[in-house]
Amino acid sequence: MDEITDFKDKIDVLILCGGSKSDIPVQAPVLQQNFHTVNSYDNHAEIPAHFDSINEAAVTNQTVGVIATGWDPGLFSLNRLVAESVLPKGETYTFWSKGVSQGHSDAIRRVAGVKLGVQYTLPNDDLITEIKEGKEVSYTKTSSHKRVCYVVPEEGADKEAITKDIQTMKDYFAEYESEVHFIDEAEFHQQHTGMPHGGRVIRRGYTDEANMAVYEFSLDLDSNPQFTAAAAIAYARAAHRLAQEKQYGAKTVFDIAPAYLSPKSGAELRKELL
Amino acid sequence: MDEITDFKDKIDVLILCGGSKSDIPVQAPVLQQNFHTVNSYDNHAEIPAHFDSINEAAVTNQTVGVIATGWDPGLFSLNRLVAESVLPKGETYTFWSKGVSQGHSDAIRRVAGVKLGVQYTLPNDDLITEIKEGKEVSYTKTSSHKRVCYVVPEEGADKEAITKDIQTMKDYFAEYESEVHFIDEAEFHQQHTGMPHGGRVIRRGYTDEANMAVYEFSLDLDSNPQFTAAAAIAYARAAHRLAQEKQYGAKTVFDIAPAYLSPKSGAELRKELL
Repeated sequence: MDEITDFKDKIDVLILCGGSKSDIPVQAPVLQQNFHTVNSYDNHAEIPAHFDSINEAAVTNQTVGVIATGWDPGLFSLNRLVAESVLPKGETYTFWSKGVSQGHSDAIRRVAGVKLGVQYTLPNDDLITEIKEGKEVSYTKTSSHKRVCYVVPEEGADKEAITKDIQTMKDYFAEYESEVHFIDEAEFHQQHTGMPHGGRVIRRGYTDEANMAVYEFSLDLDSNPQFTAAAAIAYARAAHRLAQEKQYGAKTVFDIAPAYLSPKSGAELRKELL
Repeated sequence: MDEITDFKDKIDVLILCGGSKSDIPVQAPVLQQNFHTVNSYDNHAEIPAHFDSINEAAVTNQTVGVIATGWDPGLFSLNRLVAESVLPKGETYTFWSKGVSQGHSDAIRRVAGVKLGVQYTLPNDDLITEIKEGKEVSYTKTSSHKRVCYVVPEEGADKEAITKDIQTMKDYFAEYESEVHFIDEAEFHQQHTGMPHGGRVIRRGYTDEANMAVYEFSLDLDSNPQFTAAAAIAYARAAHRLAQEKQYGAKTVFDIAPAYLSPKSGAELRKELL
């Protein structure tokens, strides 16, 4: 039988793609004893504890463990940090955009007369505009996002009744601005079976009493899991280099100089991208 | 008479705010012998040579020199690098937005009938939309930006003639989509005497044959010089810490882990921003 340690010298960096609830917290500290790892652990509240557990295994065993890569946590976190550091006076807002909510999609499909349905959470664009214009805003869970539903009705179904049932559904749609759009089955299968997602981080900062600076980072992704994987791969490159330099321990996007992400040399980067 | 070396232990980090044409290239290598420095050198073509000259002085004298901070070069460069590393298949576009062109503003003011005038360079929003929609685009100097002019006419001036004179001006406006707006003197002094600027970096990448990912970083600045200073200050914080760790030499935004920019500890950053 193969032991984990048989693979120790055959794998440069392990990318852990399991879930954050019960896979990564259990597997990562054990694997960290023998491998350099990258994960996309995304349970924000538990990240400090996860960092400590990986750091202990990594330091003890001279490995590198990059945690919480991806985009949020990950590139969004990176931008929240840079934005706050450059613009210490200001407020940071995070919006998610065009993400499928499985729970809300399920709720739509339980409405009478609905054959197929999907729900996207979209940011409230008016609120974003007001933030960028420097206006006072009320940024709450329900004011910051709206819910857009695409529904394929059963033949002969009452569309008005479906719309009303959805828009008045408590705890799901009633508290939000909720739109319902009817489409046919062909369009549903063509346009609404992907896993898009994205969002933006905005910092509205002030460089003096009169002057505003709006810092914005956004992603618009056709495939959320593919992009998350792409980010993990870039950080795997960094993990390998950090290991070669014996910079052992747990790391996050905050601890890694951007140049480690690129296959290009420092001289190439300065010439081509600076 | 005070010598430069009298200040050696009194200044943690020197921020060099001179011009890139003849101030920084001359002053920086000399000051680097005695001080940790940060500059916003922005002559893109000469950055590699400038890096080498600062690096030599910094390594020899055990100092840290962070070059080419600000936003372009600077935060835009950082995003070009991260975007390309995460999305190796794709194209990167840089647009500048609402920047005053002094040369074009001067040209407007020489047109007969013009009392006051200012010209802003703006991105071609249609082109940006097409890029984000995944369309084939022709991205050239003249197609990527348009020129918007605000003119205060002399009393009784022929506005149509002014518009025509501006829009047909060769090498300045004729090759671009150019708009002319007439305003009164009060509005000019209230709205058009600042130094706004900004822009965006867009990478349109592909996570597989079917799926696109649009990565975007943008800045909208009321005051270009104030924001550039704010970025330099954040990198001065990093320079001080690198010096304390004896990580001597020339550095760019590519070489500095984001955590060095923030006054917060690693634990605080992980808890609050990751």
